Amino acid sequence: RLSHNSAQSLRSLNTPISADAPRTSPPLFARVTQRLEMPEVMQMIDSEVFMAFTTYATIVTLKMMFMSPLTAYFRLTRKAFSNPEDCRSGKTAEERKKMLRSDPDVERVRRCHLNDLENIIPFIVIGLLYSLTGPDLHTAVLHFRIFVGARFFHTLAYVVPLPQPSRGLSWMVGVGSTLSMAYRILTAVLFL
Amino acid sequence: RLSHNSAQSLRSLNTPISADAPRTSPPLFARVTQRLEMPEVMQMIDSEVFMAFTTYATIVTLKMMFMSPLTAYFRLTRKAFSNPEDCRSGKTAEERKKMLRSDPDVERVRRCHLNDLENIIPFIVIGLLYSLTGPDLHTAVLHFRIFVGARFFHTLAYVVPLPQPSRGLSWMVGVGSTLSMAYRILTAVLFL
Amino acid sequence: RLSHNSAQSLRSLNTPISADAPRTSPPLFARVTQRLEMPEVMQMIDSEVFMAFTTYATIVTLKMMFMSPLTAYFRLTRKAFSNPEDCRSGKTAEERKKMLRSDPDVERVRRCHLNDLENIIPFIVIGLLYSLTGPDLHTAVLHFRIFVGARFFHTLAYVVPLPQPSRGLSWMVGVGSTLSMAYRILTAVLFL
Repeated sequence: RLSHNSAQSLRSLNTPISADAPRTSPPLFARVTQRLEMPEVMQMIDSEVFMAFTTYATIVTLKMMFMSPLTAYFRLTRKAFSNPEDCRSGKTAEERKKMLRSDPDVERVRRCHLNDLENIIPFIVIGLLYSLTGPDLHTAVLHFRIFVGARFFHTLAYVVPLPQPSRGLSWMVGVGSTLSMAYRILTAVLFL
Repeated sequence: RLSHNSAQSLRSLNTPISADAPRTSPPLFARVTQRLEMPEVMQMIDSEVFMAFTTYATIVTLKMMFMSPLTAYFRLTRKAFSNPEDCRSGKTAEERKKMLRSDPDVERVRRCHLNDLENIIPFIVIGLLYSLTGPDLHTAVLHFRIFVGARFFHTLAYVVPLPQPSRGLSWMVGVGSTLSMAYRILTAVLFL
Repeated sequence: RLSHNSAQSLRSLNTPISADAPRTSPPLFARVTQRLEMPEVMQMIDSEVFMAFTTYATIVTLKMMFMSPLTAYFRLTRKAFSNPEDCRSGKTAEERKKMLRSDPDVERVRRCHLNDLENIIPFIVIGLLYSLTGPDLHTAVLHFRIFVGARFFHTLAYVVPLPQPSRGLSWMVGVGSTLSMAYRILTAVLFL
């Protein structure tokens, strides 16, 4: 363990030009994977991978948050609400009562939102942990791009709606990207 | 603030008393932003920001978890269940069948719970990533406090219920805090 | 375990053999807790705790993702869909319209999925933050195992379904594990 973390192997990776230059210490997962006895595939928190994850996770979370105002838009235009206190635009009590109904377009957006929660949250959890296992930058960015692209297309296919199997396939592509990252995590870090 | 985050102040924070004492290296995101060629705006994992995030994220997650027993309370007092196996308090088969119904109060708490999932999870994802971009402590804590306060008020406004637009406004304040943090992330770390 | 986490052992871990060798700095939360003036219970990112969290979080997230294909399976075998574009297997327009219905088995799986979102996501958020507070490895792994075991049993009890209170108790065990970790976080890191 000690020799693994030794100056020797670390220097070969992080060697500063001058001996006086500040030295970086091995990041968390470098040490983790050294315990896993993979000194040659020295994995580390690849800062660029984590930055890419941060960017894509933020974008896809914003997309998910956008479903709330979209639901509100359909509720207001279709005049279909769930809560009596939301029906203020109705003039008479009877009109307000009629607005307490479920509308197919509203329900469609709500299902799309729930599907986002069911898929985007696993992506974020698994993508975060995956980013810490030191994957190759291009492989990681490819995973993130495929997932985020698939989810944008999924929303389009759900809300328009496009004929099946466009929605089903985009869902599957997103799940595939997440499963591929989960496989990488479990093969790299399994600790039961 | 700039001078606060500069290499100078970083050293003054981490400098050991004696030159032989172990030296702390710049944390992860300090190195990240160095690559971004912002050596003067040296951002770092501000431990206090991360502690504040940890505290507020835990509190607001506990608030979200509290919606489950609240739903159970309304189901038991309103005698309105979704699953046949939950209707054990009914004595006759007919009585048990009558308990398989949806109740407006139960549905209200459930919508509030789902709204929490739709809003608190984006806050936690974006707040975590935001905490790693090295924001100013006071700005960060302000974001966390506003969000958590808004969500507590939102739950109150939803469950009581308070007349609109109290619920709508508290929802908007929470979303505003999250969007502001997302803007900061994307301007600081964009890596597509 | 205390001696393990003590300043002594930390030094022996991080002290370089020669003064010229690069030095590893105490990890993030070690410094955090030093500020909290707990130098003797020096907490640190225990890499093994984080690896264990990564493993269990990935497994339980995969379990949650599995609810989607399970829902699809019940939708296809029960011929009960929510979206008109999903009813392509119907030959006549009338047959397709009849497939737009809600089925008790489908709704059961969907409730189970939503319950997963309501419970597994808090576990992941709180478990991640808890892993960073430097808990004892055995305590941490116990928390993770109990939670993940309880949630697998919960799914079984919900989908079969098993008679109550098996589902209620497994839900409670999972919540108990999460609350116990949240208590640890708030006592270790409270920063309001």
